[in-house]
Amino acid sequence: MSNPQSLPLIDPDSDAVVPCCPPLTERPFTVDEAETAARMFKALGDPVRVRLFSAVASHPGGEACVCDISDVGVSQPTVSHHLKKLKEAGLLTSERRGTWVYYRVEPSVLAAMGRLLTASASAGA
Amino acid sequence: MSNPQSLPLIDPDSDAVVPCCPPLTERPFTVDEAETAARMFKALGDPVRVRLFSAVASHPGGEACVCDISDVGVSQPTVSHHLKKLKEAGLLTSERRGTWVYYRVEPSVLAAMGRLLTASASAGA
Repeated sequence: MSNPQSLPLIDPDSDAVVPCCPPLTERPFTVDEAETAARMFKALGDPVRVRLFSAVASHPGGEACVCDISDVGVSQPTVSHHLKKLKEAGLLTSERRGTWVYYRVEPSVLAAMGRLLTASASAGA
Repeated sequence: MSNPQSLPLIDPDSDAVVPCCPPLTERPFTVDEAETAARMFKALGDPVRVRLFSAVASHPGGEACVCDISDVGVSQPTVSHHLKKLKEAGLLTSERRGTWVYYRVEPSVLAAMGRLLTASASAGA
């Protein structure tokens, strides 16, 4: 069966964007698809990481340095720890420029996660 | 500031559908919004739960009983445990009919989670 709704998601073992996954409503996920999707959901399964992710995602220019987003009520080392987790899950990318590391939301990942949660046309009503 | 993009999500402390949250890209989340969103993401942060959720969501009629979705490689008690977690997070509802408990995806929650991950028009490019 063709799978036109596969989506690009980050493969955490490499920098490549690999196809995963159809909408959750389309068909039962395979083991591999479920592991990829769960890894991303788990990364956002923490309130501080949700706040940091939304702070980066909504920052002007679509990127932010730690200096821009540290007002989430935890220490800066904790902020850095959570940003690292988001990066390891493929949700953020980072780039050092001068003194600061800048974080950016990977747009293809955001699109793919949104698609995961889209009700597919084939879902029962 | 008005918030036309608020979305209905289940309040786990009641059966009421309460408004939460804007797209993650729209503005930094508040503490309360982040806790609500993280609770749902965390529920899907496990491969078995992703498989069960997609099995229910993609089942004909939009609902499934445990008997329909137990082929995920774990014991039936473990399946029931994970279904309970999904229900506690507000992602599934359940109803007993005769011998079986039927699980259904809460459509408003799926829509709200999808919207969380939608790139808002105001997100920087």
